[in-house]
Amino acid sequence: MHKDFDPRKLRIAIAQINTTVGDLRGNVEKIIHNINEAKKNSIDLIAFPELTITGYPPEDLLLQSEFIEENLRSLKQIVKTTENITSIIGFVDTHNQKLFNSAAVICNGKICGTYHKMHLPNYGVFDEKRYFKEGIHPVIFELNGIKIGVSICEDLWIPDSVIDAQALNGGIEIGINISASPYCSGKIEEREKLVIDKAVKNRIIMSYVNLVGGQDELVFDGSSLIVDENGETLCRCKEFEEDLLIFDLDVSSIKNIRNDDIFFQNRKQLFTGKFDFKSVKLPTTSVQTSNSSSVPIQTFRKLDYLSEVYQALVLGTRDYVFKNGFTKVVLGLSGGIDSALTAAIAVDALGEESIVGVAMPSEFSSQSSLEDARQLATNLDIEYIVIPIQRTFEQYKEMLKPVFSDLPFDTAEENIQARIRGNIIMGLSNKFGWVALTTGNKSEWSVGYCTLYGDMAGGFAVIKDVPKTLVFQLAKNLNEKRGKVIIPLNTLNKAPSAELRHNQKDEDSLPPYRVLDPILSLYIEKNATIKEIVNQGFDEETVRHVIRLVDINEYKRRQGPPGIKITPRAFGKDRRMPVTNKYRI
Amino acid sequence: MHKDFDPRKLRIAIAQINTTVGDLRGNVEKIIHNINEAKKNSIDLIAFPELTITGYPPEDLLLQSEFIEENLRSLKQIVKTTENITSIIGFVDTHNQKLFNSAAVICNGKICGTYHKMHLPNYGVFDEKRYFKEGIHPVIFELNGIKIGVSICEDLWIPDSVIDAQALNGGIEIGINISASPYCSGKIEEREKLVIDKAVKNRIIMSYVNLVGGQDELVFDGSSLIVDENGETLCRCKEFEEDLLIFDLDVSSIKNIRNDDIFFQNRKQLFTGKFDFKSVKLPTTSVQTSNSSSVPIQTFRKLDYLSEVYQALVLGTRDYVFKNGFTKVVLGLSGGIDSALTAAIAVDALGEESIVGVAMPSEFSSQSSLEDARQLATNLDIEYIVIPIQRTFEQYKEMLKPVFSDLPFDTAEENIQARIRGNIIMGLSNKFGWVALTTGNKSEWSVGYCTLYGDMAGGFAVIKDVPKTLVFQLAKNLNEKRGKVIIPLNTLNKAPSAELRHNQKDEDSLPPYRVLDPILSLYIEKNATIKEIVNQGFDEETVRHVIRLVDINEYKRRQGPPGIKITPRAFGKDRRMPVTNKYRI
Repeated sequence: MHKDFDPRKLRIAIAQINTTVGDLRGNVEKIIHNINEAKKNSIDLIAFPELTITGYPPEDLLLQSEFIEENLRSLKQIVKTTENITSIIGFVDTHNQKLFNSAAVICNGKICGTYHKMHLPNYGVFDEKRYFKEGIHPVIFELNGIKIGVSICEDLWIPDSVIDAQALNGGIEIGINISASPYCSGKIEEREKLVIDKAVKNRIIMSYVNLVGGQDELVFDGSSLIVDENGETLCRCKEFEEDLLIFDLDVSSIKNIRNDDIFFQNRKQLFTGKFDFKSVKLPTTSVQTSNSSSVPIQTFRKLDYLSEVYQALVLGTRDYVFKNGFTKVVLGLSGGIDSALTAAIAVDALGEESIVGVAMPSEFSSQSSLEDARQLATNLDIEYIVIPIQRTFEQYKEMLKPVFSDLPFDTAEENIQARIRGNIIMGLSNKFGWVALTTGNKSEWSVGYCTLYGDMAGGFAVIKDVPKTLVFQLAKNLNEKRGKVIIPLNTLNKAPSAELRHNQKDEDSLPPYRVLDPILSLYIEKNATIKEIVNQGFDEETVRHVIRLVDINEYKRRQGPPGIKITPRAFGKDRRMPVTNKYRI
Repeated sequence: MHKDFDPRKLRIAIAQINTTVGDLRGNVEKIIHNINEAKKNSIDLIAFPELTITGYPPEDLLLQSEFIEENLRSLKQIVKTTENITSIIGFVDTHNQKLFNSAAVICNGKICGTYHKMHLPNYGVFDEKRYFKEGIHPVIFELNGIKIGVSICEDLWIPDSVIDAQALNGGIEIGINISASPYCSGKIEEREKLVIDKAVKNRIIMSYVNLVGGQDELVFDGSSLIVDENGETLCRCKEFEEDLLIFDLDVSSIKNIRNDDIFFQNRKQLFTGKFDFKSVKLPTTSVQTSNSSSVPIQTFRKLDYLSEVYQALVLGTRDYVFKNGFTKVVLGLSGGIDSALTAAIAVDALGEESIVGVAMPSEFSSQSSLEDARQLATNLDIEYIVIPIQRTFEQYKEMLKPVFSDLPFDTAEENIQARIRGNIIMGLSNKFGWVALTTGNKSEWSVGYCTLYGDMAGGFAVIKDVPKTLVFQLAKNLNEKRGKVIIPLNTLNKAPSAELRHNQKDEDSLPPYRVLDPILSLYIEKNATIKEIVNQGFDEETVRHVIRLVDINEYKRRQGPPGIKITPRAFGKDRRMPVTNKYRI
């Protein structure tokens, strides 16, 4: 394709790809494939997500020297493919035996510049200071007379950061931020606001390139976007899907806007002399003048809140199962809403032929529960097995009689049933090579209303970060969106029960979920004190009881499987509480 | 007690105490008790371990504002007790909404100075940059004309750190380092070398005050000590025990030694102008002149390598169980060496009346194994229960027959047995409120030769960081040290077996442990590459096989219980590998 030259325009491609941690070879193939696609579209510049080559987060793989070496060799391999296109690739750079979270600016078979991330997140799920040193030089490169700044993820989240300096002192007109920013509810809006803020304050076009895909606890939603110097969102990538977005950036009005913007002019002095810039002039390439780009551009957000959460769960499940080399999953179906939602997510993630649902009724299972489980399996068109556990449960009681003697039935017997089911699910997993999915929700995980090695047994805990009230919303929404009953109505409408003893209801031992969930959210996600929670209108005794349950059940959570973070603070890497802990607020 | 005044002497007390994370009240009581004890002995200065008030590491408790507030209130409470004595207490300070890992210098009812830790470890098991900001001012205080520098833990491990600056530019004669430095093999010697190095290079008396006690994965060994300006170790605290060590420091010869030391004089310029010191002059107190201290002083290391590891395991187990409010433990006794060693450790940690051993034989358990288990229980004088699992195992096979049909016996059936045992142990745990101890060793955890929710089921994994070859050494050593058979000789001498199928031996599926263990150590603890391991004389195919097993079993380890770190790199907080990980070296 021939392109005419316009010095105020640049054709950019945002390569929102799904990398896999440790799969250097697969990631490189994907990068090269995208570069070649971009070349076909006469792209000047293509940008990939943070740590493109290694995947994100590589965690302690970064401590293996061979891993770092291979990442450097991979970069060299990519460099060869960059004739007549500029590529920005995330990789791990080394200097004086230190590691840097880096972006290479590659052009015409050469690494023309390397930026070392200057702000390293070390909170929440992030541990970057464990591995990396902070960079000290902002990098600005000039392509066909346009100055472009490159930054990495956290740089966007810091007020008055390297991005501002690049614009105010370095004179960039385009900022490119490559990210690996994981999803949680509210994050997509928050991020867009930050991108807009950096764009408007600094009168630059911000191109934000985020990772997409699942990695253990994390789901990266993609949602890459481009915002112009007036804060207008020009285009968006897909959410929770790979995307190659092509767009023509026009910087011709930026100079005049800046001259007229007193706020911009005043901010300049803030950064004078604060940073030591590295500047790189790239070889001139031919630039596109046509004002239409070659792919349809999306400028609206596709997903509402519930769909967004649902897609996060689908993508997280799919990537956990497939990236770990499995093709099929097994899960227990109790007839309850948690296992129903988990099964529905699994079907959307993996296809109905990949799901095996197992009902494991005992004397305490109601006939209607069994019917609900069967109905769900029918609705989802998945394989369905029934394995009654009553005789095995009897056998356990028999076996333990000499020790338990005449002590009354209590949580010991309740848990034995749950662990028989865990043993069955794991037996199927071992025998047939299926991943076991667990079905516990965040409310249960919080207060320990779940059995270690029982219903908590499995490889991946799909909805472990989804509060029970949200489980209900997602399930109802699913039926509404599909316009038919997927989750059986009886499952939606009955009172939740673990069915581990006669006439058991969750609300016998827990506050109603509409009370429990907001208390949990305040305590776990907001670190609120008892007083602050009570001030929100909750009964103090209930609050104390709930918090105590959360505190004493850390040992259970420590041994649970990973699952997908969808709230601002999930259990796991995101909330690191000691097990041995005498603190009681 | 009356004391004459000698301006070149100072009576110091090292309070090597066992704090509990989150137990602010208990920790404060312990601190005040020790201050009062010190007062009785006419102490000028008493120093406590790092983060004395909160316990170490408090992890995400530090994100709860109420926790920080209570820690500050606790400090105020201690301040009141410090009439006529100077105390150095670890606490969390706040300034501008930032947290600092801090040491308060308290005297006569006042906080006279506060030091903010300048070097924050954020590697291995440490996450201090997640919580704290680095301090910027070294603190020097003057007590009765003697200049004293305070530093915290990591400051000791950094060459040319704040300690050197305090001596070379600040003129201190005594350095006090308060620490929470966890044990691993070799660490005690390494630490002493560092203390000696700082003392000699800077011609100061170094007083090193370490925490003692267990906290989840970590054991702090204590081993506090004082080293004089010539690098001579003057005295040591006990290892793995609380201790209050009292010693008279004499700084009278330091000035002359410094004048004669060209190396010392030359180093001075290194630090000139590098740090901005905060200096505090404390009120004069009466100082001890007698040249004998009031307690017997230990100047030799008490424990050899095997005893050291053993004591670490004992203390770690004791503190996990008791600090979590339990009094009794249950564990499976297979007749093998792992469960035998674990039981012996538990007896030394908790007393024989607190241990319940359970043998759970199946058709694959040899009669001699059952006899070995019984003999061990007799030798240790612990409660012993036999619960045969064969009928329950048969019942499982019956129950699963419709699904397993005629597929051959494989790991699925092996694991079902292990999980029946796990269910029994947890049933006892639930019924009687006992903590379940697991008995797997590091070699098994490394290569996944253990069953998730089976033998891995339990609250605490005592020997999870002990390689199998070391398990044998510890067991033999135990018998030798006690001068009688504790671990039955047959248990020591037979070939290890999981006894989950007929005639199974560990070495059928694994290399011999004398080959496996060094490969594991090189890969896991030293991050060695395949080439480096092969160069040590190991067969390449074996090395590749072992490493692959380690890599693919991360998902199991992620769900295992915490256990005591005794090697330089344990699984858990110390080695954070992604589960989803396609990297294969």
